[in-house]
Amino acid sequence: MTQKDSSIPESVRVHRIPERGHYDRETIDAILDASIVCHVATIDADGRPLVIPNQHARVDDVVYIHGSAASRNLKRAGQGIDISLSVTLIDGLVIAHRLFNHSINYRSVVLRGVAEQVESNDEKLIALEAFTERILPGRWAEAIAPDEQELKSTIVLRLPITEASAKIRTGMPGHVDEEEDLTKLWVGVIPVALVAGNPIPHPDIPADLAVSPSVQQWAQSHRD
Amino acid sequence: MTQKDSSIPESVRVHRIPERGHYDRETIDAILDASIVCHVATIDADGRPLVIPNQHARVDDVVYIHGSAASRNLKRAGQGIDISLSVTLIDGLVIAHRLFNHSINYRSVVLRGVAEQVESNDEKLIALEAFTERILPGRWAEAIAPDEQELKSTIVLRLPITEASAKIRTGMPGHVDEEEDLTKLWVGVIPVALVAGNPIPHPDIPADLAVSPSVQQWAQSHRD
Repeated sequence: MTQKDSSIPESVRVHRIPERGHYDRETIDAILDASIVCHVATIDADGRPLVIPNQHARVDDVVYIHGSAASRNLKRAGQGIDISLSVTLIDGLVIAHRLFNHSINYRSVVLRGVAEQVESNDEKLIALEAFTERILPGRWAEAIAPDEQELKSTIVLRLPITEASAKIRTGMPGHVDEEEDLTKLWVGVIPVALVAGNPIPHPDIPADLAVSPSVQQWAQSHRD
Repeated sequence: MTQKDSSIPESVRVHRIPERGHYDRETIDAILDASIVCHVATIDADGRPLVIPNQHARVDDVVYIHGSAASRNLKRAGQGIDISLSVTLIDGLVIAHRLFNHSINYRSVVLRGVAEQVESNDEKLIALEAFTERILPGRWAEAIAPDEQELKSTIVLRLPITEASAKIRTGMPGHVDEEEDLTKLWVGVIPVALVAGNPIPHPDIPADLAVSPSVQQWAQSHRD
């Protein structure tokens, strides 16, 4: 998608191999929702960039992240803090004739914007439910809900999805041409995916206790 | 490791759950080497943080990354650019009684420092070989080496490993205690790993062409 649509924020436009850029929310949301962790960049008190892994959950037009380092910088920044958030799903290793053309199949998203701390318990609960339910649907009802103290000790930031782009590489190596001997060297793709093993019960629970439906469902849907 | 060793740079010290922090190079290097992609944060010309996915390769005490957005900012910065780099490996979903105690088992690394552009072709070749060989040992010898033009069009940055920390969570959910009914709700860990499927040949190569040893080895070592 090489659209020069003026609605695409310049700050997240894909410059390198622009045809891999996507700017529609359907594509962006699907990648955000499929990613277990994200990486969040902030600028620290010394004016230096810092990126750390985090958990995220999208609810409609907002991405929630947990506090930690971002929240330290948030206190410094007052009302809101400029952040950038990225997620990347690895789909394959791309194996080419030329070393230069080896690549990775991936789906990534970059978000930028001002994140604000969530103050109300109601919105915190929405975020916490999303953190759990987007990965393990049903777990919210199975497990013990957060109490007042847990809510209080949880810092959640809210980032509106306004500056957003996706970048996607799919398919075979790109430069198989007549200069390359197609009969000698194997080229193609090794598909990769995040796959679940068998759930391991806590040693303190009965050996015959049934695996929770939410856990069973995730493990089955992430089978090889 | 909660050491207060003065050799640990404050800029990468793990503050939240400090016992998950590790500062030894053996631990840090193993996580860097096992990660396929990294996320690199820079500060753009507008003074805003930006994080984008990238590829990296460690060679001794240096991490090389590909150019792209960082190199745009590098041109602005002249001799070197302050960056932060993070990698995260996901090892499991941690399933607890209390929603608050659900977590993820992971191994992550955060690096910070000044990245400089690699100028010499010799060092570029070292970096390019490491990009390939650290993931697919043997591919460098199997495939066609970079030519002058490819080397010229490749921008590589060098980040010395000086400010570095790892953060690791392993094992079971932490808060199984007498208040939680151990006989009713399944708790434990769903292990996850990046797993390879069967290599898919390019449609233009002979159907009976043997999969390259480097490809076969990676696929086999990333089996379920």
